Amino acid sequence: MSTSIEKPENEVQNIELLSSVQDLHGGVTVEIKEPMDSKLFASMLGTSLSHWRQQGKRGVWIKLPIEFSNLVEPAVKEGFRYHHAKSDYLMLVKWIPETSDTLPANASHRVGIGAFVMNDKGEVLVVHERNGRFKGTNVWKLPTGTVDEGEDIWTAAIREVKEETGIDTEFIEVLSFRQSHQSFFRKSDLFFVCMLRPRSFEIQKQDSEIEAAQWMRAEDYAAQPFNQKNENFKNMDGICLTKSEKDYTGFSTMSSTTSSGKRIYMYFNNRDFEPSEEH
Amino acid sequence: MSTSIEKPENEVQNIELLSSVQDLHGGVTVEIKEPMDSKLFASMLGTSLSHWRQQGKRGVWIKLPIEFSNLVEPAVKEGFRYHHAKSDYLMLVKWIPETSDTLPANASHRVGIGAFVMNDKGEVLVVHERNGRFKGTNVWKLPTGTVDEGEDIWTAAIREVKEETGIDTEFIEVLSFRQSHQSFFRKSDLFFVCMLRPRSFEIQKQDSEIEAAQWMRAEDYAAQPFNQKNENFKNMDGICLTKSEKDYTGFSTMSSTTSSGKRIYMYFNNRDFEPSEEH
Repeated sequence: MSTSIEKPENEVQNIELLSSVQDLHGGVTVEIKEPMDSKLFASMLGTSLSHWRQQGKRGVWIKLPIEFSNLVEPAVKEGFRYHHAKSDYLMLVKWIPETSDTLPANASHRVGIGAFVMNDKGEVLVVHERNGRFKGTNVWKLPTGTVDEGEDIWTAAIREVKEETGIDTEFIEVLSFRQSHQSFFRKSDLFFVCMLRPRSFEIQKQDSEIEAAQWMRAEDYAAQPFNQKNENFKNMDGICLTKSEKDYTGFSTMSSTTSSGKRIYMYFNNRDFEPSEEH
Repeated sequence: MSTSIEKPENEVQNIELLSSVQDLHGGVTVEIKEPMDSKLFASMLGTSLSHWRQQGKRGVWIKLPIEFSNLVEPAVKEGFRYHHAKSDYLMLVKWIPETSDTLPANASHRVGIGAFVMNDKGEVLVVHERNGRFKGTNVWKLPTGTVDEGEDIWTAAIREVKEETGIDTEFIEVLSFRQSHQSFFRKSDLFFVCMLRPRSFEIQKQDSEIEAAQWMRAEDYAAQPFNQKNENFKNMDGICLTKSEKDYTGFSTMSSTTSSGKRIYMYFNNRDFEPSEEH
């Protein structure tokens, strides 16, 4: 996995070839873990590529921690392109065969939630945000937020409501979702409207993001001029009110454990389908 | 410097400061469009940062096309971190204030679809894939694929079915979706099971990805040992069969146009809610 040299007899080979790990798709991954001179790296990379080409390798991945940013340029000069980046590393990739590549795509969507929290008096939990699109507009809106990488949608809804307003909730259903594009650096957005049931009622708002928070009569919330004029808001609100007044079935969750031991959540209409096992 | 100078006052400024565009969040964006010497860039970046700090700027973004990868190292040395990358560029960012940053997150999720296409005889469209998890397993599975950046979920389902099997379809509903984590470079996945109605019936499979494709009796599809053993598949199949045999309402689409002229799709239960405007 690293370029460190353990035994002298390996030294010649280690200088010539970058150490790499094979993947399940006929490719290899190089993860740089020690500082390297960029000229030495360029030379080893060239030699390694010839070797991998002879072996019939397909995708070659190089994971470069940000502290080794001196190695970006030599990799690009060898024909690598960027695949994705996180704060602390850059992943580069090169497809060796002549055929078109079958490399996996990078993440394409940001995921957000809006939380519809209604108490027994028919009041909805709403906020004024300090920043963003609604700053200074006086529009009362549902608490919203971003679903973190690795976080479940229903968990994110509970977390955001707690963070912004101090209210404890339990998740009921995804009432609707919408997809939009070109929202941010050409990426796409998925936004899930979640219905939650409050388990506490005293608001303790977050100072940094939230200007004000309150319980507001649902009709007054929906009657705000902005919500009436904006078609998306009008329909989103309409679904929330239908849910609270009449009969609307969204998608509730069912958890299950995969063969590899991961717990995953499926979202579906549980009025119309009864799962084979309850969790 | 001995050649004639048309506007000396601009030249001095151009050497000292990188040109930048202000954003709506109190920050600036630098987009490098011409080759630059890395030492000159480092010097200009240092001077520019002092200037932006004095001006009270917050987030500083640098968009570096891949052909200028020589400038990655000097940017990192000035305290920039990676934000995201596409094939052809790397976006770096630095938060100037002492406070914790409010920079937007990168995309966190890949989005996929599975297509449940059933004909009037109660047969489901299924495939054997050449690569991936089911390679060589003899499991008949629903056509699946990745939703591209900027692509709608319902469009992606129609496209994948057409590409893999040659069958034309129309979109009916999202029947269920599931979220999983740590699937790929620590990213999360959202997978939408879509019901489609076939509009053509003669299969013309794609050679490169698909080993075989056929119409298969729904009961035979669901009775495959793999599908019976895997809890997720069992429930997913169960929902598909409930939809085809009885009464199951998923989420259908409604399109609307935002104030900025973008068309977006909302997914919701249209048996229980009637939108304010039809499209």
